[in-house]
Amino acid sequence: MSKHKISFQPHGKEISVDDGETVIRAAMDAGVHVNASCGGEGVCGKCRVMIEEGGVDGGITEKLSGEDIEKGYRLACLSRVKENLVVRIPVESTIDTTALKLMTTPRKTARIKERNLDDLKEKGLFIPPVEKKYLQLPPPAHQDNVADLARIVRSLRNEHHERRLEFDMSIIRKIPDTLREAEFKVTVNIARPVRAEGKNRIINIEPGDTTARNYAVAIDIGTTTIWGQVIDLIDGKVLAQQGDFNSQLSYGEDVISRIVYAEKLGGLEKLNEKVLETINSIIVKIIDESKIDPDEVSTVTLAGNTTMTQLFLKVNPRYIRRAPYVPAATLYPPVKASDLGLKLPDHVTALVYPQVSSYVGGDIVAGVMGSGMAHDERLTLYMDIGTNAEIVIGNKDWLVCAACSAGPAFEGGGIKLGMRAAKGAIEDFSIDPNTLEPMNITIGNVRPKGICGSGLITMVATMFEMGIIDNRGKFNRELNTPRIRESEDVCEYVLAYKEVSGIDRDVVLTEIDIDNLMRAKGAIYSGCMTLLKEVGLNIQSLDRIIMAGGFGSYIDLEKCITIGLLPEIDPEKVTFIGNGSLLGARMSSLTNRIRIDVGDTLSRMTNFELSETGSYMDNYIAALFLPHTDINLFPNLKARLEARQKKN
Amino acid sequence: MSKHKISFQPHGKEISVDDGETVIRAAMDAGVHVNASCGGEGVCGKCRVMIEEGGVDGGITEKLSGEDIEKGYRLACLSRVKENLVVRIPVESTIDTTALKLMTTPRKTARIKERNLDDLKEKGLFIPPVEKKYLQLPPPAHQDNVADLARIVRSLRNEHHERRLEFDMSIIRKIPDTLREAEFKVTVNIARPVRAEGKNRIINIEPGDTTARNYAVAIDIGTTTIWGQVIDLIDGKVLAQQGDFNSQLSYGEDVISRIVYAEKLGGLEKLNEKVLETINSIIVKIIDESKIDPDEVSTVTLAGNTTMTQLFLKVNPRYIRRAPYVPAATLYPPVKASDLGLKLPDHVTALVYPQVSSYVGGDIVAGVMGSGMAHDERLTLYMDIGTNAEIVIGNKDWLVCAACSAGPAFEGGGIKLGMRAAKGAIEDFSIDPNTLEPMNITIGNVRPKGICGSGLITMVATMFEMGIIDNRGKFNRELNTPRIRESEDVCEYVLAYKEVSGIDRDVVLTEIDIDNLMRAKGAIYSGCMTLLKEVGLNIQSLDRIIMAGGFGSYIDLEKCITIGLLPEIDPEKVTFIGNGSLLGARMSSLTNRIRIDVGDTLSRMTNFELSETGSYMDNYIAALFLPHTDINLFPNLKARLEARQKKN
Repeated sequence: MSKHKISFQPHGKEISVDDGETVIRAAMDAGVHVNASCGGEGVCGKCRVMIEEGGVDGGITEKLSGEDIEKGYRLACLSRVKENLVVRIPVESTIDTTALKLMTTPRKTARIKERNLDDLKEKGLFIPPVEKKYLQLPPPAHQDNVADLARIVRSLRNEHHERRLEFDMSIIRKIPDTLREAEFKVTVNIARPVRAEGKNRIINIEPGDTTARNYAVAIDIGTTTIWGQVIDLIDGKVLAQQGDFNSQLSYGEDVISRIVYAEKLGGLEKLNEKVLETINSIIVKIIDESKIDPDEVSTVTLAGNTTMTQLFLKVNPRYIRRAPYVPAATLYPPVKASDLGLKLPDHVTALVYPQVSSYVGGDIVAGVMGSGMAHDERLTLYMDIGTNAEIVIGNKDWLVCAACSAGPAFEGGGIKLGMRAAKGAIEDFSIDPNTLEPMNITIGNVRPKGICGSGLITMVATMFEMGIIDNRGKFNRELNTPRIRESEDVCEYVLAYKEVSGIDRDVVLTEIDIDNLMRAKGAIYSGCMTLLKEVGLNIQSLDRIIMAGGFGSYIDLEKCITIGLLPEIDPEKVTFIGNGSLLGARMSSLTNRIRIDVGDTLSRMTNFELSETGSYMDNYIAALFLPHTDINLFPNLKARLEARQKKN
Repeated sequence: MSKHKISFQPHGKEISVDDGETVIRAAMDAGVHVNASCGGEGVCGKCRVMIEEGGVDGGITEKLSGEDIEKGYRLACLSRVKENLVVRIPVESTIDTTALKLMTTPRKTARIKERNLDDLKEKGLFIPPVEKKYLQLPPPAHQDNVADLARIVRSLRNEHHERRLEFDMSIIRKIPDTLREAEFKVTVNIARPVRAEGKNRIINIEPGDTTARNYAVAIDIGTTTIWGQVIDLIDGKVLAQQGDFNSQLSYGEDVISRIVYAEKLGGLEKLNEKVLETINSIIVKIIDESKIDPDEVSTVTLAGNTTMTQLFLKVNPRYIRRAPYVPAATLYPPVKASDLGLKLPDHVTALVYPQVSSYVGGDIVAGVMGSGMAHDERLTLYMDIGTNAEIVIGNKDWLVCAACSAGPAFEGGGIKLGMRAAKGAIEDFSIDPNTLEPMNITIGNVRPKGICGSGLITMVATMFEMGIIDNRGKFNRELNTPRIRESEDVCEYVLAYKEVSGIDRDVVLTEIDIDNLMRAKGAIYSGCMTLLKEVGLNIQSLDRIIMAGGFGSYIDLEKCITIGLLPEIDPEKVTFIGNGSLLGARMSSLTNRIRIDVGDTLSRMTNFELSETGSYMDNYIAALFLPHTDINLFPNLKARLEARQKKN
């Protein structure tokens, strides 16, 4: 994709963006505030900018007068970049450009970074767990009338150097007719063992040469959302991806309420049926979208937290929520996909990611495997922030992990207008330091309906750094703006008034929301501190951080540091891998090495029950500030805040 | 069981028999002829004997006058031995007792002899394929909250020295609740691997201590008859046994007609359904008869010929009957019993005996394994004579095998009044050399309905040796008896006239029957000769013969030699193991060694296609005489025949 350079004036900031990007998102990325409360749908008309050099696509609406248009004014949210530009932001009040520069820095976005397929290939690790071999067999004769199966085995041994073969019953049923219909030219599907000493299992036989068509399905069973992908096992590409809300949602928002429901008569069966309903509808969609023959799917991998995994496998999760929190099992055997109720061909075996404990589940193990941290020398902090939050610290030699009772703030839970990272969620935000007017960027560029995780972090961080919120998470009530107001005894900031919002009321951020965010980030940060201390290390020891979770597409690392979710670390050391569980499920479809190694990795993952660890509560209470009780843990932020105070 | 001695006069022959045996069977065993055409039901009244010393139970009917009864006459067929006896046979015509002695010798019955369980135990080979272990686990605690499964594994490792464990999904589903309901005192069921390097699989978990209850089911899937047994895996005893006709019989008598039916639309499914119907009804019966809980069944082994196996496994047998006669597979993977449609608990895995070729099937492999010949130094000839006939020659170092197109004469097929070894079948026979009156002994001591294999052999052998049939199998038409007659252009001997038969006509033995028997025995004998020659050996090389098959309970070895079915060999070297297929299925339930070794044995079994072996047809034609074209191959018989001719 071609890139274009944009220069924003009077700030003098430059940024390079993809062709077709909107000017308002380019401004946000450059750290340039443009008033915009409607989320980018062109409704509020506030994001007027002047295109001084170059041209854009769109950006003209009735909100602009003919004169304005002629002068080069456009609405930034509707203008798409197609060449290099010089854009001038109309500054409607006198602004101290020094303050402007101080206040916002170009964002350090950690875009999704995945383990590279080329990397895998280079290291010889692109080993799909199921391979196809094309056989041209001599037809039986009087002097050579071995069994059909023996004929196949002989060819695999002699011509393909395959050893340690075993066969499914179902394939034996297909062999006699398939061989003869195809004139003894067939393709067999060989599933590689998940143990080094295991057997190579022939799971399917097809007439003719079908070696070019071999696919895997990867499924992430989230408490809230379920994702599925179809992966081409020949070139490693993702052919289709779909997500949908877990149908179990009607039976409870979180794992605890699901377990409570599962304990009712028929509850387990109902929840199992519901999760299968969602998974199967996703499977149908992604297979359809990939335009592949469902029979060419060779394998499926699934990952989910411990409760989701047990519900999917129809294993009573009752004891997960009762002290001492015991899961039924950590490792599950490979099972025929159709036996589990999956709408996949009979020859497909389902591999389910193992669990560490009741609250560090297969989704985390998948992330650890998929991100490669379990085989990396660097000391890594892995954080998965979803409906629950889990952290893993370690490297190729050791791994410790824990679940944090963070609550679902990062997925919009416990936030008055919180929502998941879906259309209409404010995912990015900026505020004018003088007028205190907002710049809301929503997913899908539609009117704001609520706030998703990344938007929430950015809002609170920005307002804290600008002094609009203090370190206890309270709004400065002396600021001169109608957007900060008391409503139902709670102080709040109005992000979008009803007139420009996507719902029937104002979209606001309340102090209770901020408090919940602080509890959530505090739980995670203190979890990291506690774990590090338990293994005799500190934050300076960390070589890198991997963040996984259901944020929006963007997450501003500096903002995460500002609120104290992440320790102060070079943003270059942080990668965001998106859905770690799905990544792990996909990666294990690309390299069988993961399937073989996961048991070993699992045995190296030491679980800590934070509630049982003495120092955790102290760490937690200390972390219930912005960014932390001890500001010295965040020296760069401290310097910026001091510079700002000096200036005021 | 107590034994009693019987002395038969005027023959002066003595024999020891079980308490409760009938006098007529005792006479037959002693080689004493008593006229008796009704099979032992007391209808013909011909078997009058005088009890000179001792007393019998029963034997008195209206066929005897009051005077006779007072004198001590009884019907031999209705008299049961309860003490030592002297029995006089009324000789109604003058008989040369020398001829009498010459003519019949005490029979050399090879009663069923099975591999001994004590033997197995002595050799340390009593290793049931599924074992139970009772675990008393510590309940979970905060300091010990490993997964339920891990708790079980830990105990199995530390306290029971179990290694290489794997788990079924179904057991994981049962674990959480079972553990807690049983207060962590449970019994687990461990299936031993069928490969040396395999895993020990936990297949079931039960509350409390159930180690005393562990059972196996063994099934022989015969073309005609299906047999099942329940075996107690604690003491190795057979708790119940049932047989029933294979419901597939309505779709064809032999494997070829079954294959033809299976080729029709829906035919395979129908035959599969039918065989399952019979197997399941037998399973229900034997479990019921054993008074065990079906859930305590831990394993099932099945053996059948190649066609029966493929039909049972729903594998198209079409190519078995078409040159070059290719089976779908020889080795089948272990499969969940319920997936195959067997009425057994979900945790039961079915093991199916492998096949050598299209016509040497799992029933033969089972017999070879069950009889122990594959691990014995002695050079053994194994013959399984059922609906088809198969032979195996070899020892622990090598094995060759072949199927003989013998036809089903030994199971009553192709014989005018042939029948299986069922109630009413003449299973033993003698003939008065002077009157040419028969002595028919039937299964169940009821009126004769037909002739089963052992009866047929005995009839033809006896009549041949007495000169009633010549070496071409033709009746001597000059003998003075109405029992030999021409009917519908065929010469026949009337075994039982309609009045005393169990059917609405005379029970006869025809020359066509004799011809069919000669073809059958000729095929088997020449098969042996051909195989021996192929490996550079001859009949003198044989250390022993093992006969398996669906004969009646008795088989007279000397008679088998007389007709030329068996080579002339010391009868002590012959064992009859009955149903070899069922034996193999049972033995593999008692010693997992068999399951481990069967693959290796199979690879040592070299199959010969007799039709492709040049010398076979010559051998066959030479064997189409009684006992053989070359009487010098049977020196003892030759001497007896010569002595007899000299006397006449």
